[in-house]
Amino acid sequence: MLIRNINETPMSPVQMEGVKGASMALMVGREDGAPNFALRCFKVEPGGHTPRHAHDYEHEVFVVSGGGEVLLGGAYRELKAGDVVYIPADHEHQFRAKDQGLQFLCLVPVERQCGDPTPGS
Amino acid sequence: MLIRNINETPMSPVQMEGVKGASMALMVGREDGAPNFALRCFKVEPGGHTPRHAHDYEHEVFVVSGGGEVLLGGAYRELKAGDVVYIPADHEHQFRAKDQGLQFLCLVPVERQCGDPTPGS
Repeated sequence: MLIRNINETPMSPVQMEGVKGASMALMVGREDGAPNFALRCFKVEPGGHTPRHAHDYEHEVFVVSGGGEVLLGGAYRELKAGDVVYIPADHEHQFRAKDQGLQFLCLVPVERQCGDPTPGS
Repeated sequence: MLIRNINETPMSPVQMEGVKGASMALMVGREDGAPNFALRCFKVEPGGHTPRHAHDYEHEVFVVSGGGEVLLGGAYRELKAGDVVYIPADHEHQFRAKDQGLQFLCLVPVERQCGDPTPGS
């Protein structure tokens, strides 16, 4: 069991092709004993973005603050604080931050469909 | 796939013994096709609380706004916006709201250890 604040947890730059100005903190993950899913916090700087990609596991996302867009179903859709986004497995997606940056939670299952540990879980 | 805002989604009172002044909205769940975990939003009125209980599945919680306390490890601990709480399976817990009320996300696996669907998923 644990209590950690997203604004007091060190974040690490996301090192992945296609990423610009994004950092991540794993808030609850496999090493904390989470048996089913992991909770990560992302910050994307103004003008930054996450990779445009798809993978064999889903995302459940919550927009904490700021603003931006998510690519989903082939179109970019506006995001604001309080939005919940469900991105099923194998759907192409990307998050882009607007002027004020974008802070969001992104949850993933700890195991992908192929049975391997999910990256960043 | 979907985008829904927690402040624009109708909430239903939580009807359960030991609950006072709590409402819930299922934001992403089994009916949306979520294969592994469900995302719910809770609001607890000032002075209200969730049940003091334990169950065979974990919670991952994010405090969106307001203030309150969580019973965890036998003690009540202060909560503030941005806090992430991990409550492992079979750990007794309860959320209590302070003067400004408490709004939080609470995620659960869609299937409990016994194999049944998790309530509220």
